[in-house]
Amino acid sequence: MSELSVDHLLGIKYLNKKDIELIFETADHFKEVINRSIKKVPTLRDTTIANIFFENSTRTKLSFELAEKRLSADVINFSASQSSVKKGETLIDTVNNILSMKVDMVVMRHPNPGAGIFLSRHVNASIINAGDGAHEHPTQALLDSYSIREKLGDVGGKNVVIVGDILHSRVALSNIFALKLQGANVKVCGPKTLIPKHIESLGVSVETNLKRALEWCDVANMLRVQNERMDISYFPSTREYAQQFGVNKKLLDSLDKQIVIMHPGPINRGVEITSDVADSNQSIILGQVENGVAIRMAVIYLLAAKK
Amino acid sequence: MSELSVDHLLGIKYLNKKDIELIFETADHFKEVINRSIKKVPTLRDTTIANIFFENSTRTKLSFELAEKRLSADVINFSASQSSVKKGETLIDTVNNILSMKVDMVVMRHPNPGAGIFLSRHVNASIINAGDGAHEHPTQALLDSYSIREKLGDVGGKNVVIVGDILHSRVALSNIFALKLQGANVKVCGPKTLIPKHIESLGVSVETNLKRALEWCDVANMLRVQNERMDISYFPSTREYAQQFGVNKKLLDSLDKQIVIMHPGPINRGVEITSDVADSNQSIILGQVENGVAIRMAVIYLLAAKK
Amino acid sequence: MSELSVDHLLGIKYLNKKDIELIFETADHFKEVINRSIKKVPTLRDTTIANIFFENSTRTKLSFELAEKRLSADVINFSASQSSVKKGETLIDTVNNILSMKVDMVVMRHPNPGAGIFLSRHVNASIINAGDGAHEHPTQALLDSYSIREKLGDVGGKNVVIVGDILHSRVALSNIFALKLQGANVKVCGPKTLIPKHIESLGVSVETNLKRALEWCDVANMLRVQNERMDISYFPSTREYAQQFGVNKKLLDSLDKQIVIMHPGPINRGVEITSDVADSNQSIILGQVENGVAIRMAVIYLLAAKK
Repeated sequence: MSELSVDHLLGIKYLNKKDIELIFETADHFKEVINRSIKKVPTLRDTTIANIFFENSTRTKLSFELAEKRLSADVINFSASQSSVKKGETLIDTVNNILSMKVDMVVMRHPNPGAGIFLSRHVNASIINAGDGAHEHPTQALLDSYSIREKLGDVGGKNVVIVGDILHSRVALSNIFALKLQGANVKVCGPKTLIPKHIESLGVSVETNLKRALEWCDVANMLRVQNERMDISYFPSTREYAQQFGVNKKLLDSLDKQIVIMHPGPINRGVEITSDVADSNQSIILGQVENGVAIRMAVIYLLAAKK
Repeated sequence: MSELSVDHLLGIKYLNKKDIELIFETADHFKEVINRSIKKVPTLRDTTIANIFFENSTRTKLSFELAEKRLSADVINFSASQSSVKKGETLIDTVNNILSMKVDMVVMRHPNPGAGIFLSRHVNASIINAGDGAHEHPTQALLDSYSIREKLGDVGGKNVVIVGDILHSRVALSNIFALKLQGANVKVCGPKTLIPKHIESLGVSVETNLKRALEWCDVANMLRVQNERMDISYFPSTREYAQQFGVNKKLLDSLDKQIVIMHPGPINRGVEITSDVADSNQSIILGQVENGVAIRMAVIYLLAAKK
Repeated sequence: MSELSVDHLLGIKYLNKKDIELIFETADHFKEVINRSIKKVPTLRDTTIANIFFENSTRTKLSFELAEKRLSADVINFSASQSSVKKGETLIDTVNNILSMKVDMVVMRHPNPGAGIFLSRHVNASIINAGDGAHEHPTQALLDSYSIREKLGDVGGKNVVIVGDILHSRVALSNIFALKLQGANVKVCGPKTLIPKHIESLGVSVETNLKRALEWCDVANMLRVQNERMDISYFPSTREYAQQFGVNKKLLDSLDKQIVIMHPGPINRGVEITSDVADSNQSIILGQVENGVAIRMAVIYLLAAKK
């Protein structure tokens, strides 16, 4: 029986193509489960999972929690604001304490890039990285690719453009790794100041003209603009950004084909995409959210099977 | 088999008398359940409910959560402070995202009057309004009437006075709708500045003298004084309020009958009622809390049955 | 069949020696349970437990929550920041409201010494004190003694030194009661200003020289330094404290025997103990955390059996 090549999900960087295929096939099964009237399976009734979030999160935390509950796992939530972390305890102590209570798996979001990798070397539990600073957000990239596969039949060979603040985005980086691994062609598009200098070394090309990028692509993944960064000097104003890198219906209709519009959420309506684009039938944004639960069920299930 | 005339519980305003009767009969059943040693039923094992609270709440949130768990539903809690709402996402996007994760029902508290109504027009799930600004708090009014029915046999024909800040109270408005629908006679009593101008159009009369109001009534529902409003000019001081509109034991004993004392909680002891009144055998305040769980189980059960 | 002599766990002060033995034997059973692959028992499927925390806590709250879930109880969490307590409601009203919703047991942490005792006189539910100000923290002392018994075979006759801020520590006081009750010899060690004046009346002796204390003892329980108190005049600086009352590997190796190192957590590495001590094989700190869940399962189980 096939299994993952890894014991943790720390980043797409550490997966191979077979891992991704296995995750997708497993997610197909769980997607059927969550569309039945009984949305639960008893599979992980003997597993305790701790969701440890050192940064706020709505949809990712909720999505993991639902995935865990639908696998019948016992779920413990732990957020930084309630935690001893404020009292100066180290990350390893915090997590080791939780694990001593017989927790089998840790889902962690942390502001520091590499926090999950560091942790996986020092504690005895499966770690799932739910976002580590500007580094990786692997389950988001998996659900994004899974949604492309569902919509277009395959990821390999497709042209995908990622639009926005590539420099600070863990979603962009994980997507680039996942898409390249599956044989997609990837461009990034955004303000020059927000594109990393040597991004071509990852096998992606840069396009600063949005219209040209859209004409080329099958799928446009529109990253969220972080308003909290908008007052920083190298960042354009929200209005400038929307004019140069926002997608509206007119622009979409000017293309000679129907491209797929994705967004990791939460959307700034009127900034990176207008409402008529977000709610159009070219948008698969809510489908991404639905797939997120199935993908997370698959990842948790496959990692639990390795224990 | 009878069912509710509505698909959502947005306000008492949208219910008819038969709906209320059906809810009460269903609550009778669930009240038996929660007084058994096994307090759970497996009825909603296939239902996922999201409690979305954009305002703080103790007892209402806890009461809903217990009601859901005793129906064996899967429960997801979501409070505004953790949410993307801070990031500027619209209410519809927030809720649509949650629903995409296959949530069947939403219990929502929101500071804006009509937030639940707005939501019910745009999303595909049953909505229960757990308080929307100064508008309605329907499950509170249902449990209040249910507690009167339990204590006095019937609501119809009874004289009920609601005492306090009628102007800003969603509890008052929902109670007025519920009591009138069931044929009770309703007076409101409080400082003139805190009684809405055209309240008589709802079929209630105004009495500014508390003693006269109590002499008339069978039941006095003493609203909570919102201390946070006490520094506003049109509001009396806490002391003045207690003197004019607070109920103490002496006042209660001066009446020639035993009236029923209700309070939605949390009580300001010594302001709207004194401790000896709150803890007297005329008070059914803790009974209201107990009935709250049964009423919410009934509402959730009946709305789930309509899907 | 034996049972506890008490209906609540308010403090070690109220237990007798047989109670402690019964708790330990029951914990032995539950420790086996949580080390199986199926870590749950259906024992308390009909019990609802409210965790009411008026002070922040990580490990204690998580430990109780896991204990409750592994007994299959229904769990309700309630923290002060979300609560009506802010609105000025009294403690009794808050808890009575929760109990009216048919809650069977309350686990409470509160900043006021005696809060649990007060509550137990006024409400109709089993109360477990999870820390009341500088008074008691009984489950911590039970898990500490249980961990000594596990490591050394018995608590009776052992020499135990408690090191740190004895004056403000509920962990110290509960440990003193528990250790004396079981026949251990107890010393306290720390800055003179942080040792209560008449501590000898509890049957413990004072040693202000750490080296001498360690030479005497079998077990050193190193209390956490509360950094938030470090700016108070009678408190030494963190550096002074670490020099005089911190344990490092060199000091440990200078003893002519292997003593057991305990710490209730969270550790300030480099203050009360250095990292090489915390992570050494003389440290049973993570074992304490593991035992915490078994001890809390035992306490909850035994109190539930008395209803």
